[in-house]
Amino acid sequence: MPDFATPPISPFAIRFDAEAATLSPEGPTLERRMSDLEGLFADHDAWQAAVADGDPVVYRVQSSPVPEADRELPQSITTIERGTTAGECWMTKGHQHPNHQGEIYLALHGTGGLLMFDGDRVEWLDMTPGTIGYIPPGWAHRSVNVGDEPYSFLAVYPGGAGHDYGWVLEHGMGNRIHRTGDGFALRPYSA
Amino acid sequence: MPDFATPPISPFAIRFDAEAATLSPEGPTLERRMSDLEGLFADHDAWQAAVADGDPVVYRVQSSPVPEADRELPQSITTIERGTTAGECWMTKGHQHPNHQGEIYLALHGTGGLLMFDGDRVEWLDMTPGTIGYIPPGWAHRSVNVGDEPYSFLAVYPGGAGHDYGWVLEHGMGNRIHRTGDGFALRPYSA
Repeated sequence: MPDFATPPISPFAIRFDAEAATLSPEGPTLERRMSDLEGLFADHDAWQAAVADGDPVVYRVQSSPVPEADRELPQSITTIERGTTAGECWMTKGHQHPNHQGEIYLALHGTGGLLMFDGDRVEWLDMTPGTIGYIPPGWAHRSVNVGDEPYSFLAVYPGGAGHDYGWVLEHGMGNRIHRTGDGFALRPYSA
Repeated sequence: MPDFATPPISPFAIRFDAEAATLSPEGPTLERRMSDLEGLFADHDAWQAAVADGDPVVYRVQSSPVPEADRELPQSITTIERGTTAGECWMTKGHQHPNHQGEIYLALHGTGGLLMFDGDRVEWLDMTPGTIGYIPPGWAHRSVNVGDEPYSFLAVYPGGAGHDYGWVLEHGMGNRIHRTGDGFALRPYSA
């Protein structure tokens, strides 16, 4: 057997409940409140008002116990609450993998979208239960809740890929997603 | 954006139908007949007789179009037919990843098991729909149908991990899985 920088964990079973959107045993759970999303919504004043008005939870990420270590393949379930900030749909912060590797998202509940940006091209995938969105290496990615209930998805990603949130703050995501009378619309990032 | 040895593919959506055990659009489909499993069942004569008697399909692997290339994250669905060869449950060939990386199997239908072997330790996970079996880097793995209907599972694995089938022919998998009157039993490899 080879040597590993981080000793591999032992085999184990994880219970995946697509209906309840849970993984058990549970690993770390991360909670992102409005205050964690500074600089991401177009309307800074509306964002600030939402932070002052209870600083709501925008999304939660529940991980399995598989560690984010090189050569491992961890999983997580993200649930984005329904909401808008000055018309912009609630979303994840979005990130780039510094060690460029592919990732998959499997939509479980609700109606969402997967926004991807490689610094030049923008791609949008509609995400409904049973859709796997493929995020190729080199594409920053953000999930968006465009529906009327919480949107949940399972992510599977290489543990050594890493998360660079600063890339999105610097480069944006190419588009913004706004709720409209009968659905949603993609608008240029400057809007 | 970085340079890649293999140019990354573009983002795209894959329809995952857990009920039908299909991925669409489809990538390559691989069919393993009894004759492809030479040297893997304990009873060589029984294996040879099954090859002569119609050489049945033991399992099929349907892949998504994500390529098995470094940094990509392909998926596939494997369906193992119900059957035994001299009492030994039908199974996949089993393999080791030469470039050691973790993998997940999500059970979709039927009743199966995930046999893992690191050359020293053996692990067995019962696989029923909703179970994610975690295969850590460094563990050879084989799936087994221990039920009364076809057993299907979704695999997600790093595209650069590779497949070494020879390792299993040389080292075995630590245990063999035999059907018994009321279920199945794990037996030492020499049996």
